[in-house]
Amino acid sequence: MIRTAIIGASGYSGMELLKILSSREDIALEYVFANSNAGKYISEIIPSMQSELDMRFENYDAGLINSLDIVFVSLPSGESMKIVPGILSKGIKVIDMGGDFRLKEPLMYEQYYKFEHSHRELLSESVYGLSEIYHDEIANADLIANPGCYPTSILLPLIPLLKNGIISPHNIVINSLSGVSGAGKKESFDCSFTEVNENIRAYKISDHQHVPEIKQVLEKEINNKVSFTFIPALVPITRGIHTTIITDMQIQLKEHDIYDSYKNFYGNSSFIRLRKNPPNIKDVVNTNFCDIYLKADLKNNKLVLISVIDNLLKGAAGQAVQNMNILFNLPESFGFIKKEKHYV
Amino acid sequence: MIRTAIIGASGYSGMELLKILSSREDIALEYVFANSNAGKYISEIIPSMQSELDMRFENYDAGLINSLDIVFVSLPSGESMKIVPGILSKGIKVIDMGGDFRLKEPLMYEQYYKFEHSHRELLSESVYGLSEIYHDEIANADLIANPGCYPTSILLPLIPLLKNGIISPHNIVINSLSGVSGAGKKESFDCSFTEVNENIRAYKISDHQHVPEIKQVLEKEINNKVSFTFIPALVPITRGIHTTIITDMQIQLKEHDIYDSYKNFYGNSSFIRLRKNPPNIKDVVNTNFCDIYLKADLKNNKLVLISVIDNLLKGAAGQAVQNMNILFNLPESFGFIKKEKHYV
Amino acid sequence: MIRTAIIGASGYSGMELLKILSSREDIALEYVFANSNAGKYISEIIPSMQSELDMRFENYDAGLINSLDIVFVSLPSGESMKIVPGILSKGIKVIDMGGDFRLKEPLMYEQYYKFEHSHRELLSESVYGLSEIYHDEIANADLIANPGCYPTSILLPLIPLLKNGIISPHNIVINSLSGVSGAGKKESFDCSFTEVNENIRAYKISDHQHVPEIKQVLEKEINNKVSFTFIPALVPITRGIHTTIITDMQIQLKEHDIYDSYKNFYGNSSFIRLRKNPPNIKDVVNTNFCDIYLKADLKNNKLVLISVIDNLLKGAAGQAVQNMNILFNLPESFGFIKKEKHYV
Amino acid sequence: MIRTAIIGASGYSGMELLKILSSREDIALEYVFANSNAGKYISEIIPSMQSELDMRFENYDAGLINSLDIVFVSLPSGESMKIVPGILSKGIKVIDMGGDFRLKEPLMYEQYYKFEHSHRELLSESVYGLSEIYHDEIANADLIANPGCYPTSILLPLIPLLKNGIISPHNIVINSLSGVSGAGKKESFDCSFTEVNENIRAYKISDHQHVPEIKQVLEKEINNKVSFTFIPALVPITRGIHTTIITDMQIQLKEHDIYDSYKNFYGNSSFIRLRKNPPNIKDVVNTNFCDIYLKADLKNNKLVLISVIDNLLKGAAGQAVQNMNILFNLPESFGFIKKEKHYV
Repeated sequence: MIRTAIIGASGYSGMELLKILSSREDIALEYVFANSNAGKYISEIIPSMQSELDMRFENYDAGLINSLDIVFVSLPSGESMKIVPGILSKGIKVIDMGGDFRLKEPLMYEQYYKFEHSHRELLSESVYGLSEIYHDEIANADLIANPGCYPTSILLPLIPLLKNGIISPHNIVINSLSGVSGAGKKESFDCSFTEVNENIRAYKISDHQHVPEIKQVLEKEINNKVSFTFIPALVPITRGIHTTIITDMQIQLKEHDIYDSYKNFYGNSSFIRLRKNPPNIKDVVNTNFCDIYLKADLKNNKLVLISVIDNLLKGAAGQAVQNMNILFNLPESFGFIKKEKHYV
Repeated sequence: MIRTAIIGASGYSGMELLKILSSREDIALEYVFANSNAGKYISEIIPSMQSELDMRFENYDAGLINSLDIVFVSLPSGESMKIVPGILSKGIKVIDMGGDFRLKEPLMYEQYYKFEHSHRELLSESVYGLSEIYHDEIANADLIANPGCYPTSILLPLIPLLKNGIISPHNIVINSLSGVSGAGKKESFDCSFTEVNENIRAYKISDHQHVPEIKQVLEKEINNKVSFTFIPALVPITRGIHTTIITDMQIQLKEHDIYDSYKNFYGNSSFIRLRKNPPNIKDVVNTNFCDIYLKADLKNNKLVLISVIDNLLKGAAGQAVQNMNILFNLPESFGFIKKEKHYV
Repeated sequence: MIRTAIIGASGYSGMELLKILSSREDIALEYVFANSNAGKYISEIIPSMQSELDMRFENYDAGLINSLDIVFVSLPSGESMKIVPGILSKGIKVIDMGGDFRLKEPLMYEQYYKFEHSHRELLSESVYGLSEIYHDEIANADLIANPGCYPTSILLPLIPLLKNGIISPHNIVINSLSGVSGAGKKESFDCSFTEVNENIRAYKISDHQHVPEIKQVLEKEINNKVSFTFIPALVPITRGIHTTIITDMQIQLKEHDIYDSYKNFYGNSSFIRLRKNPPNIKDVVNTNFCDIYLKADLKNNKLVLISVIDNLLKGAAGQAVQNMNILFNLPESFGFIKKEKHYV
Repeated sequence: MIRTAIIGASGYSGMELLKILSSREDIALEYVFANSNAGKYISEIIPSMQSELDMRFENYDAGLINSLDIVFVSLPSGESMKIVPGILSKGIKVIDMGGDFRLKEPLMYEQYYKFEHSHRELLSESVYGLSEIYHDEIANADLIANPGCYPTSILLPLIPLLKNGIISPHNIVINSLSGVSGAGKKESFDCSFTEVNENIRAYKISDHQHVPEIKQVLEKEINNKVSFTFIPALVPITRGIHTTIITDMQIQLKEHDIYDSYKNFYGNSSFIRLRKNPPNIKDVVNTNFCDIYLKADLKNNKLVLISVIDNLLKGAAGQAVQNMNILFNLPESFGFIKKEKHYV
């Protein structure tokens, strides 16, 4: 029995985590911490959970968690770094869903997150939890920095082709379209229905806080400089990310061969699906899959990649559980795969 | 030239008012007051107005408006009553878009609006601005209380049939579905895209603040008691109200005859359209029309009425301008009707 | 091992059935019949199933199914009655998802479905599969007529109160709002995005084919006449039904007592949830729950009931599986309940 | 008085045309042809037009149009070329909304439109109706090929910067997101609400029929080869196009200077608006504006351009009327601009 807790359980990612973890026989979800909703029953905040899980949200109390095996932290940027060191010091593993431990270079936090990092020593220690790429490091980590939603959708299609030299590490153009749940659960005029519906809005062009995260991972993987332009936009859907990447081909290959290259790279990864037609967001919503499609534009020597994920699952809570499975030596897809899966 | 100003010009109704008034040659829009956005250009808040209207929002200043003919007030409940008496005392006409002057009985404000009315003397003086019903009173009013969006969609189909005795004043059931702009322009978790999209939510069943407004008008019209159950619900659309009313028929008439009864009542009102099929919300969005449909369920002696309006136009800014037209002795549809209408 | 097949597996209800059945260890899904897509792999039609289920749709062939235990039929109205008698004659149980075997009175098919029923002898034999109400008959049935989506959302809140005499069997007003998947998977201008989005449309007022189904069940339950007005409307959501029912109270009870009456009636039914606040459609989407809320309007002697379901699950495929569970003597919630549930 | 007719008046673009033309005092709309709806009143097909315009759709009859000044043709690809030559031969001007006369190279029709062009002689004669660029040719044209919606949103931001040498004509990446009305008014499973809602779908990557149209215009303008990758995608909105273009800067300029370059190029064009923040689709919906935004990514030497238009207005009917204004020597914005504009 894996004993666990969620800190920040009433946000959108926390809610997904709560649903997945509470459904597993092998997991004891001991506490659901959510200061803003402390004292309330889960079903008061998430009515869909009524008669499913009968617990109360509590104020986070470090004294309560001493005997746990692992803790999931799902807090706003800058909040997580305040409590994670204390949890680690108790010998408890941590999967942090936010950005606080993803970047290796402390100055990047000042530039992109607008705060000074208070625990720089943990930045070198934390393992970036992109499950398909860092399986072995994850298996031995104490602190896993779960990837951002945009980076997950971007890194999974890019890494194999960059490592194989099929595409150039420069001149990459990335357009990502995100559902509104990506912005978190909050009062916000920009995320109100009247502003989002029947609308499209690009934002933070080249300035998004996920830019250094993507750059860091790609450059580490090919041990070389990588340059790209990243344009995120908000679209009127609740969940899902649709990423289009246009790259320069360095080796003239047929589409079939590039698909083979992916197959070799990802082997029998449970959650990578190669697709023959442009994937739809709805093909992956409510799943932990990342679907990847490619199309060569040989006239222009371009390779177009499209990937889709559910931002709250493969882009957050799903990948966190995948990482927990790796940590506890379970199959990555445990609790996800078909014959164990039930529908409600 | 009609000299005017809008107080509360940056909310959703204020924005519509601003678009209509700024497009008219016969109107001088002298000031657009919006304390929360004072100093900003209109196009900073409403980018669609860029290159259309080049004014700045200002803080409301009673000293500025002395020479105006009429002022539109579009403020949250309880705010309007604080400034309207001062405006009236300058001899300026007022069309108030909120609820502060709609109810005749001061105690209703305590029960439904949760505030004590500070200017009860104006409640008897104000004229309820349901244009098709109170044309003559409106023409002579100093203070017009513009109707609520739900009441407009409910009163227009009900009044003729109640006055003619075709339907019973009791046992009326009203289901109204409203787009999200009806809740106003604000930061609100309940109105966030993620909460509203793919969802339906009934609220304030029988407790809605529009209940006493509807009741007051219906009972005045038939000089008798009226009873109804009102169930509003929020639906994932930006604008529009769809109201379904189920009533008991008191006289067995054919549908054709009931339509005739409407025709006689509304004569050549510009904005009432009788429809042979259930009207769609999109038939009236961006217009000042109220479309009305009826279906007799003779087996059960029921008459079903359906009406649709644009909540921001016929349910707010459009009807306000219609009332201004009446006040200034212009055709009701001036600025609206076809051959004067242009599209962008 | 329960051996089964789906006939009509590529429609929306069929797809849901396919997902649920393929996820269960105790079920062998031998064939997925879909004439319009015969020869294609499931993932070609339902890309989200790629790597989940690797079967081909086939043309229906009665010769293939001889050794099955149960067959699910999900075909358009009038198609099912052509093949069900043949399946039953092989001694195979049938759960029919369409309307062909729901009504007892053959003439109703001519009036509401516009076809003459070719197997009237089966109408008296079929059992109406409203799981919570007809558990015992279902357990012994050969042919189960799975209820319509609207009727499910209407009958579950109404039956207990009618049987207990709490509400009157007359003067009932029902407004149901349905997501577009309720219209099935088809090319249709009326269901195109441009027509449905930002729109609301009432249709088939009092004429809907579910009217005789609702009437038949209610009158059977109280052994008396029942009268109601039913107004369905299409709303811009993909799945879910939101039903509002306004009734006349016959006994003055407090809300608390009426909730108790429900509790007594439904006991520990797995899928009925009583709610203290108006339920949202999103609380039940992707689940088999029916959430019920009530509010007394004592001034008018009215009782307002609200129910929400997922039209494709509790309103179709979910309830079909619930009925299969009953037939095979499994817990109703087998394959649905929490601790067996996994999320993807 | 300009005497005109619309051929294909009941599609989405035709409907917009009908609304604009019928609202103008200086235009006599003599016929609205729509074979599929011949005999029906406009309001039967477009209920929002009830009491606005009381005409019947007719079967197209060449004999009726002899005395007209100009005809708008809004027919599916390949249909227009069958009737336009006959209209021109009567000395009547034609604005064709489809693709039949946009391309100069006949073979492109075989490759991209899948038909052989039957009137190649008209291809050299027709004038491409991108109003801001080809004003003078349009003023003297007999046959105007109104631009496609995607090309309009792409050419207007690109042409000035390419002509000024600010950006490279190669390595251009274009991502365009389109609302569903762009696909036309038709029965289509791909455009059904259930398939489009909560979804994003890229399609026809590099194969779209607008590719040769864009290429032809750009290469003509700079008299040189141009290469680009074009990725269109369908998003769940009714109307609007959001285009993002990533280009290589050839001259290092500040954003301010590039904006100035646009200002010089477009001078006081009525419908080009330069925007300081990323424009939203809703800023231009229901208008004829094209809003343009730019952002320099100097680190990567990239210039990002974003444009938004209403696909049915600036991308179709609005630009067609703008072209008619040019043809008849009226101000381009006649019937659109503020002080003539009315709201309904």
